Amino acid sequence: MTTQSRGKFITIEGTEGVGKSTNIAFIKAWFEAKNISLLHTREPGGTPFAEEIRELLLSQREEQVDAKSELLLMYAARAQHVSQKIKPALEQRQWVLCDRFSDASFAYQGAGRALGLNKLSELDQWVLEGFKPDLTILLDLPVEVGLSRAQERGPIDRFEEEKVEFFEQVRQGYLQIAQQEPERMKIVDARGSLEKVQQQIEQVLIHFYQQQVTGS
Amino acid sequence: MTTQSRGKFITIEGTEGVGKSTNIAFIKAWFEAKNISLLHTREPGGTPFAEEIRELLLSQREEQVDAKSELLLMYAARAQHVSQKIKPALEQRQWVLCDRFSDASFAYQGAGRALGLNKLSELDQWVLEGFKPDLTILLDLPVEVGLSRAQERGPIDRFEEEKVEFFEQVRQGYLQIAQQEPERMKIVDARGSLEKVQQQIEQVLIHFYQQQVTGS
Repeated sequence: MTTQSRGKFITIEGTEGVGKSTNIAFIKAWFEAKNISLLHTREPGGTPFAEEIRELLLSQREEQVDAKSELLLMYAARAQHVSQKIKPALEQRQWVLCDRFSDASFAYQGAGRALGLNKLSELDQWVLEGFKPDLTILLDLPVEVGLSRAQERGPIDRFEEEKVEFFEQVRQGYLQIAQQEPERMKIVDARGSLEKVQQQIEQVLIHFYQQQVTGS
Repeated sequence: MTTQSRGKFITIEGTEGVGKSTNIAFIKAWFEAKNISLLHTREPGGTPFAEEIRELLLSQREEQVDAKSELLLMYAARAQHVSQKIKPALEQRQWVLCDRFSDASFAYQGAGRALGLNKLSELDQWVLEGFKPDLTILLDLPVEVGLSRAQERGPIDRFEEEKVEFFEQVRQGYLQIAQQEPERMKIVDARGSLEKVQQQIEQVLIHFYQQQVTGS
């Protein structure tokens, strides 16, 4: 164990079906073998109140939801999650592993919707005031690979066809962040076998862990 | 009727029990006599989705709600209300009368909570981009008057004692906005009889109506 004054905040990101759940279990087990327990949480949600906001966000409705309103709800949940769960845990030297965080808002709402990245940055700064993960693992899969995997289950319909363009924007949004913040966000190629993916994740974890131990 | 290219947006503000409901009915009737129908709406809420957010905001819970999270929810409801109901109505030359709007956030959350007015202004600007009511009627009542009215119903307990200070801050928050924006926010002294209060409201409405008619 290290002599850190606070715990570390690790997030995992990627589009749907990229294998987050399986690899979250792998990351938890890897740290537990080093006697570091990870508090596992998720976004949107993570506290009872934030989970209520999640339900509002994810439920289907006839009324069109304004893009700003959606983003404000997302950050209302995030403000609650950070202030009531993540930061208190980190202050007690607890390490935290979160399934998605702000990067997902940048990739999904920033790249996918009309608001734009600058507008999103302003809100992120207003809410989080610079608070960021210490490490983010991005599970990256080319959209055409996801598409061919989906095709194995049956032909693609028009609706899924349209989704391809959206997911391509989301993927590019994630990759752009990784390019801007290579120290924090590590890209893991999620195309190969689970074994190959987890070998890459392990390399990232070893590197991160050693930085913490040596304090470099 | 005027030759305005869009309807007018009127809001009514004030602390609890200051007589908003009664005077909303008076304002509606006054404009109806001029053949102007007012779409009556309220905050937080005003659309089914925004009303769901209202329920989240007002429901009692054990979990402490972060001040930023509360404010983000308030503005999520407001963004939805403005984009889906208020602005579309105004664009169709419909006049809108709203029970509370942004000024309430400034008075209640800005003055009453720890966030501060500058922080609140930033969020208001992010969401509304300068959108404001054309006229705001502030029903103003000194806290000691409200207190003495409450005392007529029985002795004040410790909890109500503490509330006095909070409502004094809210009142001062409202009065500060009225001082900064005297053209938009009109103070109505709500101490006197209903007749006296409504005489003052009528003066405000006559002045506002004539401005619209003359376009001055």
